[in-house]
Amino acid sequence: MAEGGRTAEVMRAIRGRIAARGLTPGERLPSIRGLATLMGVSPSTVVEAYERLAAEGAVRSRPGSGFYAASLAPPPTLAEIGPRLDREVDPFWVSRQSLDGEPDIPKPGCGWLPAAWMPLDPLRRAARSLARAEDAVLTDYGTTRGPAALRRHLARLFAEEGLPVGPDRILLTGSGTQAVDLVCRLLLRPGDAVLVDDPCYFNFQALLRAHRATVIGVPWTEAGPDPEWFAEAAASHRPRLYLTNSALHNPTGGTLSPAIAHRILNAAAAHDVTIVEDDIFAPLEPEPSPRLATLDGLERVIRIGSFSKTLSASVRCGYVAARPDRIEALIDLQVATHFGGVSPVAAELVAGVLGDGQYRKHLESLRRRLARARRETAERLSALGIRPWLMPRGGFYLWCMLPDGCDAAGVARAALREGVVLAPGDVFSVSRTAPDRMRFNVAQMGDGRVMPVLGRALAMPEA
Amino acid sequence: MAEGGRTAEVMRAIRGRIAARGLTPGERLPSIRGLATLMGVSPSTVVEAYERLAAEGAVRSRPGSGFYAASLAPPPTLAEIGPRLDREVDPFWVSRQSLDGEPDIPKPGCGWLPAAWMPLDPLRRAARSLARAEDAVLTDYGTTRGPAALRRHLARLFAEEGLPVGPDRILLTGSGTQAVDLVCRLLLRPGDAVLVDDPCYFNFQALLRAHRATVIGVPWTEAGPDPEWFAEAAASHRPRLYLTNSALHNPTGGTLSPAIAHRILNAAAAHDVTIVEDDIFAPLEPEPSPRLATLDGLERVIRIGSFSKTLSASVRCGYVAARPDRIEALIDLQVATHFGGVSPVAAELVAGVLGDGQYRKHLESLRRRLARARRETAERLSALGIRPWLMPRGGFYLWCMLPDGCDAAGVARAALREGVVLAPGDVFSVSRTAPDRMRFNVAQMGDGRVMPVLGRALAMPEA
Repeated sequence: MAEGGRTAEVMRAIRGRIAARGLTPGERLPSIRGLATLMGVSPSTVVEAYERLAAEGAVRSRPGSGFYAASLAPPPTLAEIGPRLDREVDPFWVSRQSLDGEPDIPKPGCGWLPAAWMPLDPLRRAARSLARAEDAVLTDYGTTRGPAALRRHLARLFAEEGLPVGPDRILLTGSGTQAVDLVCRLLLRPGDAVLVDDPCYFNFQALLRAHRATVIGVPWTEAGPDPEWFAEAAASHRPRLYLTNSALHNPTGGTLSPAIAHRILNAAAAHDVTIVEDDIFAPLEPEPSPRLATLDGLERVIRIGSFSKTLSASVRCGYVAARPDRIEALIDLQVATHFGGVSPVAAELVAGVLGDGQYRKHLESLRRRLARARRETAERLSALGIRPWLMPRGGFYLWCMLPDGCDAAGVARAALREGVVLAPGDVFSVSRTAPDRMRFNVAQMGDGRVMPVLGRALAMPEA
Repeated sequence: MAEGGRTAEVMRAIRGRIAARGLTPGERLPSIRGLATLMGVSPSTVVEAYERLAAEGAVRSRPGSGFYAASLAPPPTLAEIGPRLDREVDPFWVSRQSLDGEPDIPKPGCGWLPAAWMPLDPLRRAARSLARAEDAVLTDYGTTRGPAALRRHLARLFAEEGLPVGPDRILLTGSGTQAVDLVCRLLLRPGDAVLVDDPCYFNFQALLRAHRATVIGVPWTEAGPDPEWFAEAAASHRPRLYLTNSALHNPTGGTLSPAIAHRILNAAAAHDVTIVEDDIFAPLEPEPSPRLATLDGLERVIRIGSFSKTLSASVRCGYVAARPDRIEALIDLQVATHFGGVSPVAAELVAGVLGDGQYRKHLESLRRRLARARRETAERLSALGIRPWLMPRGGFYLWCMLPDGCDAAGVARAALREGVVLAPGDVFSVSRTAPDRMRFNVAQMGDGRVMPVLGRALAMPEA
C-alpha cells in the first residue's frame, strides 16, 4: 500500500523514534490528538499512520488502550542507535572479527601485539609472586583509587614526561576503554557533540554512540587535527569533549606538533571544550612527543592510558589522570557501576612486571623490533602498490593507501573469506572518506598467509 | 536580597536544571523570551532571575552573548543528580567507608567475607597454574563472550538449579555490578522508572541514579516483594525493569516464596516489565530457592551473578544469562565500553578454583560456618537489645532492628569515630523508612572491638 504524504510523514517520525530508542518496546505511542497538533496534521491521519505501522508489526494496538511500540521485536542494539551501517564496515566489525576470530588466523587488522612480542617471562614471574601475595590481594575488593604503589609509579612516569601530578590525581580503572567510558558518563548527556579525529580509533565511535553523543570528525593532518577546522567545529557545534590519541595517533601513527597542540588548547579554552587524551601508545614512542596534558597541566585535559599495548591486554588495568574534583566524581561513578576499579590481582601483576628489571629492556627491544617491522612491512606492501600515508615515529600501525580504485571494505571481506582479518579505512572515518585506506599492524604480518591472501583480495575484492 | 515570588520560581527552575545536569557548565541558558513564554512570566522577570543567579555565581554572563551555566564550578557529581542526601547515609557511604577504610579496622557493615574465610589454598594453586598458562592467556584480550569452558561450567550449575541454558546464552563480564550496569545501559533511558525492593542493596540505588532512572521502592516482605504493591507500581509507573536479589535477599537475607515469585512474574508480564535477578548470594544457600529466572526460563528475566562472595572479590568476574538477542546486544555494548568482558587471567583463576577439588568442600564448610556465625551473632546482639527482623536460611547478613528510639545513622557515625564501619538501615531504603535498622555481616563480627564500640555507639549516638 502506498503511503500518502502526511501519513508517511507520521509513520517516518514514529519509526525514527523507535529506531533511536525515543520509544522503546512496550511503550505507549504519543496520543493521537497530541501528535496531530504537534505535526500539524488531522487526528485521522495519525490514526491511519498508527494502523499501518500496526499492520507492518512495528506497533501493537491494545483494544481500548491505545497503541504501543511492539514488544516482540528484539530490544534495540547499539548498532541501531546510529544510522544502520553495513556491519562489514561498522565500528564493531574489526573488534568482533579480531577478538572472536580463531586464535591461529592472521590478524593484521587487530590492535595488539602477538603474544610472543609481549613480556612473557616477567608476566610468568609476576604470576608466581601472586601465588605468594598477601591474603587480601587474592580475595578482597580493592580500594576505590587502586593501589598507591602503582599510582606512584605512574606519577613518576608522568613527571619524566613533564607532567607533575601527585598519585592522588590518578585513578586506576578496569581498562583504558573503561576510563574513557567513565569520563564520558561523567561529562556527556545524550545529544552532546563530541569532536574526534577523522580518522580515529574505531572504538571511540562505538563508545560515543553508546552515549548517544553526536560525533563530529576533525580532519587529521600529518601533525595533528586541522586547527582551523577544529576551531570552527568547536564554535559551531559547541562540543563538550574532544577525544583523541595524541601520541602515535591511531590509526595513522602520526604525532601532534607543538604548534598545533598549542592552537588546539587555545581553541578548546575559547569554547570550553574538555579534552580527553588517550595516550595508550605512549610507551611505544622513541621519546615523549608533545602532550596536551603536559601543556595544559590537567586543567582542561583528562589523560587516559593503560598497559594493554606493551605489558598485557589480558591483565586489565587502565588509568585516568585529572583534576581532583573530577577524580572524586569518577570514583563514585566507578563504585556505582563496577563496585571498584582495577582488580587487586591485576594491579599486583602489573606492578610485578613494571618492577621487573627485564621490563625496561623489553620496551627498548620492542621499539627497535617495531621500527624494523615498520620498514619491512612498508617495503613488502609497496610491492602490491600499497603505500603508507606517513612513516610513523613509533608504534605498530601503518595507515596505508591502496592502489587506485581499490575498495578497502571489499578487500577486507575477500581476505576474511580466506581467514585473514584486515582493518578497512572507513571503519576509522566518521565521514567515511577513507574507502581506499587500510590500517596494517606491522607486528601481525609475519604469518606466511598474509601477503598472498592480500594480493588475491586486491585483485578480486568482494563486492 | 529576598527573592520575589516569580523571580524565585525562575531561579529555582534554572538551579534545578543545573543540579540535574539538564544544563551543564558552559552551556547557554534558555533564551529570555523563550523561558518567559514557557513559564508564563515577563521577560524582565527572567532577566532579573538570571542576573541574581550570576551574582551568586551559578551563572555567568558574557557581554553581548547571553547567560551561561558557570563553568568554574566543579562538574556535577553523581551525588548531585538525585536529591542531595546527607553523605552519612547516602548509598555511597557504606561502599566508600568499607572499600577505603584501613585494612585492619572491623567492618561489620561491609558486604564481603574476611580473607581467612575465602578459599586461599585453591586461589594460590590457581595462581601457580597461571604462571604456566598458555602465552595468550597472559597477554591477549579475551573473546567477547569469555572462555567457553567457564561458560559451560556455569551452564551446568544453572541446569542443576532447574534452569537449562546453553553456554551461548551466557556472557562473562568484568564483574556482577558491571553486568547489571550493561543491562541497564541496554534497556534504560534517562527518566525510565525502575522497581527495586525496599530495602535493597544500596549500590542498586547508586547505579540506577547513574542511569538517571526514577527509582520506585516496593516493600519487601519476609517472603519477597509485596505482590499487590508490585502490581500497582507496575501499572502506575510503567517501569522498564525490576532489579532484585531473589535468593538471600540483600540486606534482609529473606527468600522469595514460590507463590510470590509466580505473582511477580505475572504482574511483570502484564505490564511488560523486564526482571533483572542478581543472584550473587546463590552459592551460599543451603539448597536452591525459587528463582524468577528458573520459573520464567529467561524470557522476561535476565539472570546475573558473580564469584565475589565465595571465591574472590579481587578476581573480577561476573556473568549475564539472557535471551540470545540480548546477549548479542550486550556483547556489542561491552566491546564499546570496555573492549571486552572478563580478563582472561581472571577467568583462568576462577576456572582454576572451580576445578579445584577443595572448592566444593570450601562451600560446604562455609555454609556451616556462616550458620553458626548467624546464630552466635544474633545471640550477642540480643544482649544489646538488637533483634534480627528474620533469621535467614543462609548468607552472611542479619537485618536487625535497633532498640526503640535508636537512630542507626547516628550509631554508625559514632562507631566510625571509633574505627568500626557499620551499615545503617536508610542506606538500603529508597523510601528512607529504615532509620532504626542496621545490617550486620556476621562473618565480620569476630574482632573484639566490635561489640564494645557498638554498645557505646548505641548509648551515645552522634547527632
